[in-house]
Amino acid sequence: MTDMYQLTMAYSYWKSNRHESPAVFEAFFRKGPFHGEFAIFAGLEEVLNYLNTFSFSPSDITYIRTLFPETVDDAFFDFLAELDLKNVRVRAVKEGSIVFPRTPLVVVEGPLLACQLLETAILNLTNFATLIATNAKRMRIAAGASKTLLEFGLRRAQGPDGALSASKYVSIGGFDGTSNCLAGKMFDLSVKGTIAHSFICSFDVADLSEDIFNLNGKPFWSSISKYKEELGFASASESELVAFATYAHALPSNFLALVDTYDTLQSGVPNFLCVALALIDCGYTPLGIRLDSGDLAYLSIESRKLFNHVAARTGKYLKHLKIAASNDINEAVLLSLNTEGHDIDTFGIGTNLVTCQQQPALGMVYKLVELNNTPRIKLSNDASKITLPGRKALYRLKSHDGEALCDLILSPSDPPPVCHQKFLCQHPFELQKRCFITPTEVESLLDLVFSDGIIAHPTHSLLAIRERVDATFRTIRSDVKRLLNPAPYKVSVSFEKYEETNKLWMKQVPMMEFS
Amino acid sequence: MTDMYQLTMAYSYWKSNRHESPAVFEAFFRKGPFHGEFAIFAGLEEVLNYLNTFSFSPSDITYIRTLFPETVDDAFFDFLAELDLKNVRVRAVKEGSIVFPRTPLVVVEGPLLACQLLETAILNLTNFATLIATNAKRMRIAAGASKTLLEFGLRRAQGPDGALSASKYVSIGGFDGTSNCLAGKMFDLSVKGTIAHSFICSFDVADLSEDIFNLNGKPFWSSISKYKEELGFASASESELVAFATYAHALPSNFLALVDTYDTLQSGVPNFLCVALALIDCGYTPLGIRLDSGDLAYLSIESRKLFNHVAARTGKYLKHLKIAASNDINEAVLLSLNTEGHDIDTFGIGTNLVTCQQQPALGMVYKLVELNNTPRIKLSNDASKITLPGRKALYRLKSHDGEALCDLILSPSDPPPVCHQKFLCQHPFELQKRCFITPTEVESLLDLVFSDGIIAHPTHSLLAIRERVDATFRTIRSDVKRLLNPAPYKVSVSFEKYEETNKLWMKQVPMMEFS
Repeated sequence: MTDMYQLTMAYSYWKSNRHESPAVFEAFFRKGPFHGEFAIFAGLEEVLNYLNTFSFSPSDITYIRTLFPETVDDAFFDFLAELDLKNVRVRAVKEGSIVFPRTPLVVVEGPLLACQLLETAILNLTNFATLIATNAKRMRIAAGASKTLLEFGLRRAQGPDGALSASKYVSIGGFDGTSNCLAGKMFDLSVKGTIAHSFICSFDVADLSEDIFNLNGKPFWSSISKYKEELGFASASESELVAFATYAHALPSNFLALVDTYDTLQSGVPNFLCVALALIDCGYTPLGIRLDSGDLAYLSIESRKLFNHVAARTGKYLKHLKIAASNDINEAVLLSLNTEGHDIDTFGIGTNLVTCQQQPALGMVYKLVELNNTPRIKLSNDASKITLPGRKALYRLKSHDGEALCDLILSPSDPPPVCHQKFLCQHPFELQKRCFITPTEVESLLDLVFSDGIIAHPTHSLLAIRERVDATFRTIRSDVKRLLNPAPYKVSVSFEKYEETNKLWMKQVPMMEFS
Repeated sequence: MTDMYQLTMAYSYWKSNRHESPAVFEAFFRKGPFHGEFAIFAGLEEVLNYLNTFSFSPSDITYIRTLFPETVDDAFFDFLAELDLKNVRVRAVKEGSIVFPRTPLVVVEGPLLACQLLETAILNLTNFATLIATNAKRMRIAAGASKTLLEFGLRRAQGPDGALSASKYVSIGGFDGTSNCLAGKMFDLSVKGTIAHSFICSFDVADLSEDIFNLNGKPFWSSISKYKEELGFASASESELVAFATYAHALPSNFLALVDTYDTLQSGVPNFLCVALALIDCGYTPLGIRLDSGDLAYLSIESRKLFNHVAARTGKYLKHLKIAASNDINEAVLLSLNTEGHDIDTFGIGTNLVTCQQQPALGMVYKLVELNNTPRIKLSNDASKITLPGRKALYRLKSHDGEALCDLILSPSDPPPVCHQKFLCQHPFELQKRCFITPTEVESLLDLVFSDGIIAHPTHSLLAIRERVDATFRTIRSDVKRLLNPAPYKVSVSFEKYEETNKLWMKQVPMMEFS
């Protein structure tokens, strides 16, 4: 799993005997996704599994041979067949870290050829994972902490694998469950689901069966019919009622009714209420309804009113009933529902979550920053695209109340920041932008995660990672976490790093001549 | 791989003894993707492989048991463990068909429970495949038939699997190659790639090695230096020149230089030309350049001018040199490049191709259309969301010159259209929209692809499928294929189907009462 140019470059490195030159590569992104400032770094454990099993199989070698011209030196393929990552060291921020533009997230050090070859896989495995974890977190912010968020994206993802990654990483971003059973099985996630339109459409009035006349030793269907008459719900669809009753009879503790098959307020909600009341009489607790079309704010409020009205008329307790909604929800819809006012407890989000509709790819890149112990820079006419040269240490400086003040990038030779001591934090490109920070806490962000050919880092459960996300997230200032127009978070360098960067930049930029 | 609600519905069907009821489900989409009219149907062969291996493993059963309440009837899990698809028949349009909104693409007939369970997998495996094949075709239309299109999306797709699907299905949509070696190996695709920025950044002037002084028994480096002096390219980066020369020396028949690391016109293209001329002197054919930033239209034209200028000065033939471009290209960029004028031969497209940025999901749905031999309808306040009830036959009517005139949906009991006989083609919902068509050719579009538990259909190579795409595409009127504001393609029904639909609709729609 790599891009062809990694192999042609590898050949050229090998042929010119530079393949063992000590190199340092870095993966980072230049701009926060979704017009935001932060991202949740994810995918590291998949990268580590990839590194752990890295090798070219005999059939890979045979195939790669066919991609090169006949004239290529055959010893290269013997070299590839023997290639391992024993001399590659990887440092990375923790899975589930809150991260910011331009800070190194994965740092790969080792022989030039091997490190270069890893680029594509590292980007493939972290780009989407980070993007979708971040997307989920933003939806969590938009929905608010009290709402239940469910991922329903399996049918719209980029194949089975895309869907599994989505289910996995939205859970660390703050989703409470998924509809995807395989994801639930593989990652120990909470799995949710009740009924679809086709279930309701499959029922006719004639499908009413004697089997559902009683439930738990009590009358069920006659109780439903009685409520329907008493409450004046005559116009509600009879076949929908039979469908609800049949489902509730089979799974009485799991009755969440999809109410928009015929008409939400005329049919679905009234039918739901009749079955819910009968369930209560039989000793069960109905769960609620799911809205899947129409004006969700309006329908949720009207449905709740009807719940309250029926509760008042029947004297039953219905306050616990949940209203779920699931039609084309995205971050903007969540925000606008908040503005309008709504009565929805649970959001089921599919397409716009798993495709990251607002920005379907994160532009994480992987750049050479040092070779033969000399810093390297990648120039660009656009200053924001210039890479920070050299091997780096990365610290987060925090205030007395644990709030993150700044991420600080140093050369390994720079004196690290010390608690309670003033440190000059310099903008990487603009000399005039700088400040002194006296941290109360200094956290080193890069851990050694792979060395000597093996994973050098304990893996964590998704739950533990989600807890890390939440804990770290609380340390970030709320204006930085804002969804729209966030305050920029400071990513600074030492003054030495600034000078090194600008010296190298000046040295490498071509001098144009005009006359 | 299914959604939880498929299993809760399955339980309810089983519990109410309706699981064997004969059902018909259909997969279709309601609107063409990307504001267009057509789509290229893809993913069928993966669906067939899924059906062919469908079963619940013992560990699946153990896991699913945990998702249900304790009170559930255990015999259900024995039933699931034994479940097979022997009684399921699947009809589908051919992989690579040009298809239109509302026509049935996959038709699944068999026991209600089994057919319902297949929904999620069928949608997952066809939605993205169809979307990205269509996206690729649109980019092919925008770029024009003479251009080379390469897929570079591995690092931005939804994980390894998403990337593989992308590489596979863009090839049937008209892409010529991919950067993804694994996709090349698995699907026998053309694999392309040369060098990245990090390769060039890894070189210093000091990295010039004696090994590249000669090539094929002729002076190489001195020839490069001579051209650099003669052509007045003194300001071009010397380390970039060493990088190009080293690469070209290793793979002299594969020299396509990435020219924007320092400055495209001041450094990259001049350095490329020096190495290219020296390669020609050594008996090789250089390939060309790749632009990866800046104004691609302007840079391609200026680069070509420089090629021509140098060809005139040196007397070398450089007309064959290709210009590739690869920075953030999408359909709109391709169209605007055409308007501006450019000199690009090859486009490398990554992010915007594999994420289908313009519309990251296709809304294919799977609906129950018949149960117990009775048509079923799914209502909606939005007429365009109403499903066409009943089992269907699907025909394409063509004119004397092979042009597609209309897709026609019939009930199996309707007399099929006959060549050279007038047929009344009726709009499915609007009585006044209808016409007579006298086809010269009538093609039945749905083939039996799965029955008796096995695949009932030969599989085809990607190349054969691509040829089908191209052949069918030529039969579609060009205004229907237009990328923006296409003419609508006629999807009609028989008058009998129209009446059946509207009768059922009237019967099921709730009558509201006002006073």
